[in-house]
Amino acid sequence: HRCRTMVGYGRFLALLASALLAGFVAVILSLVWVFHYREGLSWDGGPAEFNWHPVLVVTGFIFIQGIAIIVYRLPWTWKCSKLLMKFIHAGLNTIAMILAIVSMVAVFEYHNARNIPNMYSLHSWIGLAAVIFYSLQLFLGFAVFLLPFAPVYVRAVLMPIHVYSGLTIFATVIATALMGITEKLIFSLRNPAYSASPPEATLVNCLGLLLVVFGSLILWMASRPHWKRPLEEHTKALRPIGDTPEGTEVESTMTNSSNADKSDLRINTEAARKQNLKFDEAGQRSTM
Amino acid sequence: HRCRTMVGYGRFLALLASALLAGFVAVILSLVWVFHYREGLSWDGGPAEFNWHPVLVVTGFIFIQGIAIIVYRLPWTWKCSKLLMKFIHAGLNTIAMILAIVSMVAVFEYHNARNIPNMYSLHSWIGLAAVIFYSLQLFLGFAVFLLPFAPVYVRAVLMPIHVYSGLTIFATVIATALMGITEKLIFSLRNPAYSASPPEATLVNCLGLLLVVFGSLILWMASRPHWKRPLEEHTKALRPIGDTPEGTEVESTMTNSSNADKSDLRINTEAARKQNLKFDEAGQRSTM
Repeated sequence: HRCRTMVGYGRFLALLASALLAGFVAVILSLVWVFHYREGLSWDGGPAEFNWHPVLVVTGFIFIQGIAIIVYRLPWTWKCSKLLMKFIHAGLNTIAMILAIVSMVAVFEYHNARNIPNMYSLHSWIGLAAVIFYSLQLFLGFAVFLLPFAPVYVRAVLMPIHVYSGLTIFATVIATALMGITEKLIFSLRNPAYSASPPEATLVNCLGLLLVVFGSLILWMASRPHWKRPLEEHTKALRPIGDTPEGTEVESTMTNSSNADKSDLRINTEAARKQNLKFDEAGQRSTM
Repeated sequence: HRCRTMVGYGRFLALLASALLAGFVAVILSLVWVFHYREGLSWDGGPAEFNWHPVLVVTGFIFIQGIAIIVYRLPWTWKCSKLLMKFIHAGLNTIAMILAIVSMVAVFEYHNARNIPNMYSLHSWIGLAAVIFYSLQLFLGFAVFLLPFAPVYVRAVLMPIHVYSGLTIFATVIATALMGITEKLIFSLRNPAYSASPPEATLVNCLGLLLVVFGSLILWMASRPHWKRPLEEHTKALRPIGDTPEGTEVESTMTNSSNADKSDLRINTEAARKQNLKFDEAGQRSTM
């Protein structure tokens, strides 16, 4: 009953299919890289342990995180409860976090086994910061939006920050992966070197391009307000007749309500009533 | 008369000051890098010509582009005409594009003088793509939003795409700079190597971190709808009484109007009238 027809459903499906294809091919390329051109995967302190790093980052920290970001947008989930979708969003992000941490452990163990220093590169600095911020984001998101204790106005104030942080961390993780690809190709390609463009270099450059394409598609889908999950029925029933759907903007992606006229709102009771309603909606979005 | 008080003006100023500081220090660090640790700047086909690449990218393609992105948000410009601000936005982006192209020429000439291959690295692939997309974005933006020929609905449809592309290209340029820093430190630091963390490595890692901080601050400021330049007076006068400021969302940053209920709108004349008004507003935003 709550499943509604999405505007631009065909376009959404095409973008989703493209994102899934880009992400899927990226995962395949990371596997071709480590199995065909490198030492494969194992947990032995050698190069095959290092190889878990790119595979788990591409699969978990990028692909699964990207899906977690747009999971509320899938229109066939709109008939599911918001609480279930929150568990799926939090669950996917938890899986991505665990895989990211395991991928870092693989590098540290590999470095330590070979007496290579840790944490000297820009890649490692920004990568570690991204994992820390990602974990904080997950913890705070759980405490504020899943646990039933945070009051409605706290959720309404924190939602735009949660969305902005999530998208910024996601973009930063992809940027970090591009640095990692650059490092690894320079260090591991000798005779022929990276600059001679051997097939491995071309393959892994394509992997990097696909990560950028995947990230761009996810960010586009996540930042279209008309593809947001609709509000629950009982809140919609509270809306004044003739109120246009812009009323749903409060907790939107990269968007707070447009309150450039907040001073006007304070002295306009009609508008103030709508503003309160919008806080209720934001709270409800975070509760149902 | 059209200059209005901005909501959260103090917060905006603090973020702007932080962004300017991060950008300014990044420019200084790029100069310290090339003058104190490297061969300085000249146009001789040698390493000092290459050094124009990081300096011009940080100064032009990142710092100036970042300022161009948020120039409409500066509240003291709200009394200036929209047309003047468009010229400033387009002008800053043109300067950034020219500096980006010169920075690429420096690398090609340096490579050619030393018989180093061009365009083999992921950095070069994504960097060249970013410059091409940036130039297309500038050309299309000029044709659609500055020249007086594009009809209002074309501007309204293209504005969210223009904003999304602009922010995505900006983030991609920063990611490309991080790859470039990684490459350059690996190639140029020998004895001690990058992995031994000499002072130059630490300095340039900090430059990379500052670029991420600068980018994050710009993206936050650019994506807060309540910091958008207000509409011109004569359009505001057209708005129905009691219409809340959400009506200004159409062409917003990362935001189209929330039209999840577009099918409803089609059969609701009141809402349809507002929708038309919003297209007018979007057109007007792109015209004044």
